[in-house]
Amino acid sequence: MDKKEYALKKHEEWQGKLSIECKAPVTNREELAVAYTPGVAEPCLEIAKDESLAYKYTGKGNLVAVITDGTAVLGLGDIGPSAGMPVMEGKCALFKAFAGIDAVPICINSKDPQVIIDTVYNISKSFGGINLEDISAPRCFEIERTLIEKCDIPVFHDDQHGTAIITCAGLLNACKVTGRELGKLKIVISGAGSAGISIAKMILRMGFGDVILCGSKGTIYDGAPYNNPEQQKMAQITNKEKLAGSLADAMKGADILIGVSKPGVVSQDMIRSMAKDPIVFVMSNPVPEIMPDEAKAAGAAVVGTGRSDFPNQVNNVLAFPGIFRGALDARAPKITEEMKEAAARAIAGIIPEAELTPEYVLPDPFNPEVVKQVAAAVKAVAEAEKR
Amino acid sequence: MDKKEYALKKHEEWQGKLSIECKAPVTNREELAVAYTPGVAEPCLEIAKDESLAYKYTGKGNLVAVITDGTAVLGLGDIGPSAGMPVMEGKCALFKAFAGIDAVPICINSKDPQVIIDTVYNISKSFGGINLEDISAPRCFEIERTLIEKCDIPVFHDDQHGTAIITCAGLLNACKVTGRELGKLKIVISGAGSAGISIAKMILRMGFGDVILCGSKGTIYDGAPYNNPEQQKMAQITNKEKLAGSLADAMKGADILIGVSKPGVVSQDMIRSMAKDPIVFVMSNPVPEIMPDEAKAAGAAVVGTGRSDFPNQVNNVLAFPGIFRGALDARAPKITEEMKEAAARAIAGIIPEAELTPEYVLPDPFNPEVVKQVAAAVKAVAEAEKR
Repeated sequence: MDKKEYALKKHEEWQGKLSIECKAPVTNREELAVAYTPGVAEPCLEIAKDESLAYKYTGKGNLVAVITDGTAVLGLGDIGPSAGMPVMEGKCALFKAFAGIDAVPICINSKDPQVIIDTVYNISKSFGGINLEDISAPRCFEIERTLIEKCDIPVFHDDQHGTAIITCAGLLNACKVTGRELGKLKIVISGAGSAGISIAKMILRMGFGDVILCGSKGTIYDGAPYNNPEQQKMAQITNKEKLAGSLADAMKGADILIGVSKPGVVSQDMIRSMAKDPIVFVMSNPVPEIMPDEAKAAGAAVVGTGRSDFPNQVNNVLAFPGIFRGALDARAPKITEEMKEAAARAIAGIIPEAELTPEYVLPDPFNPEVVKQVAAAVKAVAEAEKR
Repeated sequence: MDKKEYALKKHEEWQGKLSIECKAPVTNREELAVAYTPGVAEPCLEIAKDESLAYKYTGKGNLVAVITDGTAVLGLGDIGPSAGMPVMEGKCALFKAFAGIDAVPICINSKDPQVIIDTVYNISKSFGGINLEDISAPRCFEIERTLIEKCDIPVFHDDQHGTAIITCAGLLNACKVTGRELGKLKIVISGAGSAGISIAKMILRMGFGDVILCGSKGTIYDGAPYNNPEQQKMAQITNKEKLAGSLADAMKGADILIGVSKPGVVSQDMIRSMAKDPIVFVMSNPVPEIMPDEAKAAGAAVVGTGRSDFPNQVNNVLAFPGIFRGALDARAPKITEEMKEAAARAIAGIIPEAELTPEYVLPDPFNPEVVKQVAAAVKAVAEAEKR
């Protein structure tokens, strides 16, 4: 049985990767009278008087909804809400296994951003946080932005921010390994969709240097005829020299290449045209923009990918469990830029400086220190922001 | 510590009565590659080709959403969506404990029926069934009716149908105990809200006899000035003699009194005015319309209440776990009238005829036969309806 058949067989066996269990016993009349009527009226009345007591008397404070519309599921594209559910269940399983967070998978039967916003907002009081997942760009920007404004709980689109946070964590360590100072680096990003834009924003905020975003039609510069509105906004703060050209043009002399685009768009010659000892994070999945051995042979000093079978895997599970754990523990109303940056620095800091090598700039996601450190860092920032 | 304080303390200890656990292991890279990327892509692709495979590869087929808007929580009234959550969590715990069904509590932050309908419909593909709970009348009728039409999964407002099903189950046995034949009985219902109307419909369908509904302003008859639209519809099919008058007027010579109204509205004289050996189900909670000992002293042959500390408790947990179990197992698209009737007959049938007494016309909810028999009966009808 090949791996695909095996995965299918296991999913059939599980018939759902989650189960919902009772923490409160309800096996006899006496127990029923506490967990259900008439006893349950007491916490209801308390919450009616002070809504914040929902955190005390219900599971809200440890409950996250993992929500999709099924429009950008993995690399499979718009496969619909029902077909997205196995991924959402998997994500919920990760929330529990890595951070002890109860998570519920929910798919929304509409592609209209306003309908999605309204639906999520209307059910948001049931939860302590919302994880948006696999919603296509550019719709995901408006949906996340509006929900963050409307809801009084954290709303986080992991596809945008998770990858950005972990990429920046890896870059922090890769710069140490290659002896680079942050500030004047030249960074090229292949892929100008939601992940690319989110990574660019975080790189700028953390002060790595200047970024050139590059879409399928060429570099994103102020006034480029193919810019969408989000890209045009990015053009104001990136690509300071207004370079118009191809990815190959942009990569000449660059310190860092980040790929969130598609297989085969980066050649060995393009790697050779970069600055000495370049850092190359090629995260197209499952086939990267250039294979790690080819990039290495062309001079790349540090290579990261999205795959678990190569060193330096940019794996979202490094970030979201700890970020939500910290935000929920602090009862943060939002996940702020500062909290994301703290998460990136915490992930980078897991590896002691003496242990850093070109093959080890990102920690193992199964290292239990990761969620602990990320949660602590995020919680500390969230609590400082409350003061 | 009194019972109320104890219930509050336990709710604080639990901080949520449910937890979500992983059935699929995700503790190492190999497991992650099956339950999450890349393995999870396989069930996604299968469901994208055939949406019904969501029942095979996800938890949908055993997952029910327990949804409220918080407008009619227990007897507490409109306490809001957050304050309703302890009850919804309790209901979910009962789904699991009694029928092995995974259930998710969701509260909706709107009282607008159309918003509630849209929100529930938009998330309905995530679930195998929808249990509406504690939504006030008459809004609950429109909301349930519309959702049943729109959704391809069972939608069931337990407050309406659960009580009706169990009341009818109890009446079937009470008629046996008092030697009554179904058909020409006179039944009076005190309370003309959602529960009363739902009970009236079921009594008529099961052929007990003629029903007179009685609201706070008097009997419901064709053209009564205080009828709301639902009541006016009921007036067409109940109260054949068009009796206009009080509850006391209606009860004269009645075989059966059902109370879903409020404490104190039934006197001993009113019981004395009924037919010989009357059946009295007084379910106002926690204080019944007349206390059982008073009703008995006035001649009631069989008395049922909503309380666990008197015989013959009309407890919703007798019905909904088995009804959903049967409907999910048959993958029924709706819970039909025939399925509800089958559930009532199954509940009544749990008690062998030889064991029936005036104090034992309804089975113990903790009798494991109840959910088994109800589920089997409902499933059999659902499967017959598919043919």
